[in-house]
Amino acid sequence: MNKGGIFVVSGPSGSGKDTLLSQLFKKCPEIKFSISSVTRPMRAGEKEGEKYNFISRKEFEEMLQRDELLEHNVYVGNYYGTPKTPVLNASKNGDDIIIEVDVNGAKQIREKLPQAVSIFIMPPSFAELEKRLSGRGTETEEVIAERMNSALFEIERATEYDYIVVNDDIDTAVDDIIQIISGSRLMLKRQKHIIDEVLNYVKS
Amino acid sequence: MNKGGIFVVSGPSGSGKDTLLSQLFKKCPEIKFSISSVTRPMRAGEKEGEKYNFISRKEFEEMLQRDELLEHNVYVGNYYGTPKTPVLNASKNGDDIIIEVDVNGAKQIREKLPQAVSIFIMPPSFAELEKRLSGRGTETEEVIAERMNSALFEIERATEYDYIVVNDDIDTAVDDIIQIISGSRLMLKRQKHIIDEVLNYVKS
Repeated sequence: MNKGGIFVVSGPSGSGKDTLLSQLFKKCPEIKFSISSVTRPMRAGEKEGEKYNFISRKEFEEMLQRDELLEHNVYVGNYYGTPKTPVLNASKNGDDIIIEVDVNGAKQIREKLPQAVSIFIMPPSFAELEKRLSGRGTETEEVIAERMNSALFEIERATEYDYIVVNDDIDTAVDDIIQIISGSRLMLKRQKHIIDEVLNYVKS
Repeated sequence: MNKGGIFVVSGPSGSGKDTLLSQLFKKCPEIKFSISSVTRPMRAGEKEGEKYNFISRKEFEEMLQRDELLEHNVYVGNYYGTPKTPVLNASKNGDDIIIEVDVNGAKQIREKLPQAVSIFIMPPSFAELEKRLSGRGTETEEVIAERMNSALFEIERATEYDYIVVNDDIDTAVDDIIQIISGSRLMLKRQKHIIDEVLNYVKS
């Protein structure tokens, strides 16, 4: 009945999403993280089953055919996807689970799981976004401009999300996400079964 | 910038909404309550300006003409309405404010103030609703059936609300509302100005 929540988290490059999520999981180790299946080769420092399951193109396409993915996309010639079963099992067991995806992945998940609650991580301002994207100092102006374009494209779609977290101070932003996770339990889309119960009782 | 929230609270007869709200204001005296303007006569035990402002029919109609009400309705030949200015002022001052209205009033407010967050108070089950409505023991079966009909009519429209609070245990329900009030600060509709700010910067 009181199942765990499914949370879709997106944020553009420059939003500080990665640091934010790793702080969140450090603070709340009970929150599950959805491991993506990918067909790209493992990089130095990565471990199988930590953030990704590294599988073959054939295995990925079989998962697709069996409709075992909540969302997927192709990036630089490789597949990336979110397996359905671990997410649904976590929720069934009463665990909250976070799926980290881009705006397109979030859209696909929303269509398949309307009860999923979505959170968009925002940089605090345009100036700060610009600073963060150019901050590393090693990139050309073209690369920075391209990152900026892609960040702004994602921010334009932030209006598709349920909640917006502004990542100015990281500790505040982590607490904001924790608050969303507990408060969203009461959102209409997660409580609808109760309305249906009372009304079905009448109709039956 | 971080303005106070405007919360619309509804719940049918039998939801226990009145006791719930009075407990909430006892626990959180900093939360404001929107005082309705009504044209019905004051009853024994009521005080001007506590829950209602008692005004004349002429005064009410003048408020209507000056578009000073967020919502209004007619009940047993009397006007009931929510004055706009105190609600907007509370929010501007950073105070959270609760407006208690029925499903029709909530709809009118949602149209005028899309940033308002709405909460529907539910009885825990059909059986419990029936028990609460007939519990006083003094009413005829017709009166109970009529109350039941009107409660079910309201519950059918619970799907128009942002959050559903099930009032089974009153302390839990009070805490649920407190959690909604703090968590809803991060809802898209209350954060949209931040997205607009970043994007407008680009367009300008």
